[in-house]
Amino acid sequence: MLRWSIATVCMGGTLETKLAAAARAGFRTIEIFENDLTFFSGKPREVRAMAEDLGLEIVALQPLRDFEGAPEPMRARNFDRAERKFDLMDELGASMLCICSSVAEDASGEVDVCARDLADLSDRAARRGFRIGYEALAWGRHVKDWTQAWQIVERADRGNLGIVLDSFHIYARKNDVAPIARLPADRIALVQVADAPGILMDAMSLSRHHRCFPGQGDWDMTAYLEAVAATGYAGAISLEIFNDQFRGAPANAIARDGMRSLQALGEALDQTRLARGEAPLAISRALPKPAKIAGVEFIEFASSGTQSTRLEAELAGLGFTRVGRHKSKDVDLYRQNDVNIVVNREQDGFAHSFYLVHGPSVCAIALRFDDPARALERANALGAPTYHGRIGPGEALIPAVAGVENSLIYMVKAGAHNAWNKDFDFIGSPDVSGPLERIDHLSNVVRRSEFLSWLTFYKAVLGFSDEPQVELADPYGAFYSRVISAADRSVRIPINIADGGSTTVSRFIEAFGGGGVQQIALSTKDIFAFVERARAGGVRFLDIPDNYYEDLSARYDLDTALIEKMRVLGILYDRHKGGEFFHIYTAMFDQRFFFEILERRNYDLFGAANTPVRLAAQANEFDQGLRDRAMLETE
Amino acid sequence: MLRWSIATVCMGGTLETKLAAAARAGFRTIEIFENDLTFFSGKPREVRAMAEDLGLEIVALQPLRDFEGAPEPMRARNFDRAERKFDLMDELGASMLCICSSVAEDASGEVDVCARDLADLSDRAARRGFRIGYEALAWGRHVKDWTQAWQIVERADRGNLGIVLDSFHIYARKNDVAPIARLPADRIALVQVADAPGILMDAMSLSRHHRCFPGQGDWDMTAYLEAVAATGYAGAISLEIFNDQFRGAPANAIARDGMRSLQALGEALDQTRLARGEAPLAISRALPKPAKIAGVEFIEFASSGTQSTRLEAELAGLGFTRVGRHKSKDVDLYRQNDVNIVVNREQDGFAHSFYLVHGPSVCAIALRFDDPARALERANALGAPTYHGRIGPGEALIPAVAGVENSLIYMVKAGAHNAWNKDFDFIGSPDVSGPLERIDHLSNVVRRSEFLSWLTFYKAVLGFSDEPQVELADPYGAFYSRVISAADRSVRIPINIADGGSTTVSRFIEAFGGGGVQQIALSTKDIFAFVERARAGGVRFLDIPDNYYEDLSARYDLDTALIEKMRVLGILYDRHKGGEFFHIYTAMFDQRFFFEILERRNYDLFGAANTPVRLAAQANEFDQGLRDRAMLETE
Repeated sequence: MLRWSIATVCMGGTLETKLAAAARAGFRTIEIFENDLTFFSGKPREVRAMAEDLGLEIVALQPLRDFEGAPEPMRARNFDRAERKFDLMDELGASMLCICSSVAEDASGEVDVCARDLADLSDRAARRGFRIGYEALAWGRHVKDWTQAWQIVERADRGNLGIVLDSFHIYARKNDVAPIARLPADRIALVQVADAPGILMDAMSLSRHHRCFPGQGDWDMTAYLEAVAATGYAGAISLEIFNDQFRGAPANAIARDGMRSLQALGEALDQTRLARGEAPLAISRALPKPAKIAGVEFIEFASSGTQSTRLEAELAGLGFTRVGRHKSKDVDLYRQNDVNIVVNREQDGFAHSFYLVHGPSVCAIALRFDDPARALERANALGAPTYHGRIGPGEALIPAVAGVENSLIYMVKAGAHNAWNKDFDFIGSPDVSGPLERIDHLSNVVRRSEFLSWLTFYKAVLGFSDEPQVELADPYGAFYSRVISAADRSVRIPINIADGGSTTVSRFIEAFGGGGVQQIALSTKDIFAFVERARAGGVRFLDIPDNYYEDLSARYDLDTALIEKMRVLGILYDRHKGGEFFHIYTAMFDQRFFFEILERRNYDLFGAANTPVRLAAQANEFDQGLRDRAMLETE
Repeated sequence: MLRWSIATVCMGGTLETKLAAAARAGFRTIEIFENDLTFFSGKPREVRAMAEDLGLEIVALQPLRDFEGAPEPMRARNFDRAERKFDLMDELGASMLCICSSVAEDASGEVDVCARDLADLSDRAARRGFRIGYEALAWGRHVKDWTQAWQIVERADRGNLGIVLDSFHIYARKNDVAPIARLPADRIALVQVADAPGILMDAMSLSRHHRCFPGQGDWDMTAYLEAVAATGYAGAISLEIFNDQFRGAPANAIARDGMRSLQALGEALDQTRLARGEAPLAISRALPKPAKIAGVEFIEFASSGTQSTRLEAELAGLGFTRVGRHKSKDVDLYRQNDVNIVVNREQDGFAHSFYLVHGPSVCAIALRFDDPARALERANALGAPTYHGRIGPGEALIPAVAGVENSLIYMVKAGAHNAWNKDFDFIGSPDVSGPLERIDHLSNVVRRSEFLSWLTFYKAVLGFSDEPQVELADPYGAFYSRVISAADRSVRIPINIADGGSTTVSRFIEAFGGGGVQQIALSTKDIFAFVERARAGGVRFLDIPDNYYEDLSARYDLDTALIEKMRVLGILYDRHKGGEFFHIYTAMFDQRFFFEILERRNYDLFGAANTPVRLAAQANEFDQGLRDRAMLETE
């Protein structure tokens, strides 16, 4: 039976921790990486007992290295080594030993020699009831491609010997996956999956540091598994991810992410098969399909006291009107066209806890779904439990799950605009028209070590897609950004990844105490009129150096008067394929968040060309803040 | 005149900060990277005034991108763009504009077309008194190699047009540097230097993230500069290093490291020239030659109270004898054969300050030099000032400089054994023979962001050499290690680089509050006898799992009785090229340091094969410590 599996090497911590985490995430099958056993301070049979208690089958022990093609007397020693591993497997209750192609300098690459070694080993294994799997390492001395490994397995021709396929080595060697479909299913010993980013790097470094779960990288995991499934293979499909960051993270979170990524992969594979009229494989229990995302219903700020006063003054300056007051809580609703902003000043409950940890900040986002109940069911099925908050009598229960740094992601019904009436008393019917039309995007900052986990959350759990990663320069370092977006692009979230140093992104992590929403981008149809009015209303925008406009006039044949107008107002400009982009940033609010106001004219990007200017200006603003504080302290 | 220069892009912070840092480090010439100007909030002429005040010549403004080979109307716009840059150069007081080869998709790669564009631009530049430099980017659309850039410059044939050479692009493209020697000196506009690690990676990623100062990477900077010098070139030699970590570090430290690396490079170049009977270039002021390192005279622990009692009990257990008491301070000397360990329990002064910040720890190392006065002079000349401590009347003044985390590196005269008598009262003439013979090595832990800086310190300032970097797996992540060693190998220091996560190395950084000495490795001739005695004397060693010995017996044909003896005593084993290595670790002292005792039998490595076992055992010990503490707290 096809089933998901995970190798202990994916997770950090002791072997006990790893087994417990795998079982808790829903795995029923594991591979044991021998180092984990060597470092374990108990007996192998204790591992067997632990695995049995947890309902885990040990599908394989691996790897035995540098086995095949060795000259004597090493060959004889290798068989002795293998017998010791068989003893270990007896104690462990493992049925298969995986051998990876030799990297030894004196190993023979002769197919006949290697096949004879593997045949002899398989015969010995057969006497003890074991199977042997043989895998091509991308950096093997002679055997690098799965086709070479297969040639040797076929030549050895033993019933208990099969090939181990690993998407990592196959894609790292740029091998074609389609011919895998022609392998006899009973000669596939084990199937391993690992994704990786599409970067040029030697295979060994890529393998050691950049392997990731399916969907976190750039390789076509579906095509690989399609070819495997076409053989009729019915064994374990096992995650084998070497990744320092994974080993540094809690094992439970990594095992959960691994299972999420496999379930999403199985789902994608079944969709492909169904589309071609083939039966679904249904490796995972049926997963509720992702609900359709249809925009952001509201964002909620946790705030308090004078910070709240300043925030609300800024919202007013940006053209928002206070339209509602919560029936039972110290919560107000601000609105402008389609944009709802909730300001929560409660002194207990979720928002206040969030405020105490993070300061004034976006504590929740409500996403509109066509079927929020299904969205929640899917999240639950993928290990994201429902958040239950405190509600007043008669108020709406809005289902939510935990997002970055335990902020909330509410799931609301798209188009159910009168749902607000349950919780809020509306103040007359004020004019909510204004220059700002909708939330264009929200940017999230996350720690580098948590990025892949949140990527899998947004993609597998919520049903977002991702765009290629870009890299941005900051005066104090660099950071990476990857955009996730809903299918209809009604929600787009650039995720900015902090990697130490003192970049704006890292300063946010530090000031905020973790990841969160740093930027709220709102669209307008006339940014010039908007900025003039907002400046008059006291909104502070980020100072852009005059040299930026000098440079702009050298780069583009823009009208001098237009450039001057941009300079005076502090508006930035970008151009792409004939489209134009005008945008501006508010001054940073307590080092935590800022608003971007933007006007798109046939332009679909995010103005990344101006990001270094913004970052430098924010760094200036921050330095100035430090200087001001130092001045105050010395006065 | 040949002179050292630095590009503003090497450093982090605002343009003011960068200029000041460059001047402070001794640079008299800088290149301005245009982004720094765009982000600067003042006028270009203010930059000129700042540079003049600091005595800095602005050698070039760069880069103008995607210039040559553009089709009309882009070509005309490019000339307009260039004129705007000339305006800027006028204001800045820069005399040269650097152009890097076009990456534009529609650029022509025709030599004649590109040469005509550059000739026309040079003519325009000549009218305004400027020079043009042209550089091949490794990822240029057509022009990738310096030989191609040279072909275009030669064809254009203008007196104020020259080639810009950058070791980064040249080595990234694996170009030969020797033919550079045949270039006419007056056609070399500018020479840039950047080193990089010898890893396989696409040139652009390598350039953006892994460029480093000469001597920090793996490329042959001396061969490159030799070829340049052979032309008779007499302009600026400029550091152009894009490195996020550098931009995240204080600009002063980076500029200082850049100058150190250039001075060491100039020195190496002159040594090569002198050896061949050529005149030295003497680009830097004469630098005192590195003094010869001849071992470790002592290591000094900062300690206090019961921690000191425990530490001294451990030293006694390891066979050390207390032989001396400081004349004026609460400081004792422990000795065993050639190993001196100083325990400092003073309640004020340097060691105590160090203790307050870092806890019980190695606060100083004394290195033996053939000429400590020259060692100190060299350090001073390279920006490492002398540390002046408090001494008592009649006591020896030992010169020192600051090392990692402001620990001290004392410089003492090799063989001057009776220098101790000035400061210490000796207790009779005790027997200091014992099983431990000498300090084999000391390992340093440093933060990743500080590693390159300390590498340059050890190499350029103190005269160590380095060995290739290795990578080690920890149960909770991975870390890197690079060994620096004295020419006679009397001092070897593996530097372990912490890269976040919760590896043993990172836990050290956290517990210690920065980098420092984590391991003191002492050699013995009979480790078995030593461990038996030390265990009987109450020394606690690291617990090694039985499975390690199972694995050992599978890997090596070792005598069963020997393996059993190792198991009982907790001794680890490695083998390399017929040599054998036996070693053991003491339990971690307050998460800060531990001793390694080792016996080498024709073996010259560090037992890295066993490092994962040690790390796993230390992680177990740490986890156990956490559990014990949790138990205590819940009881």
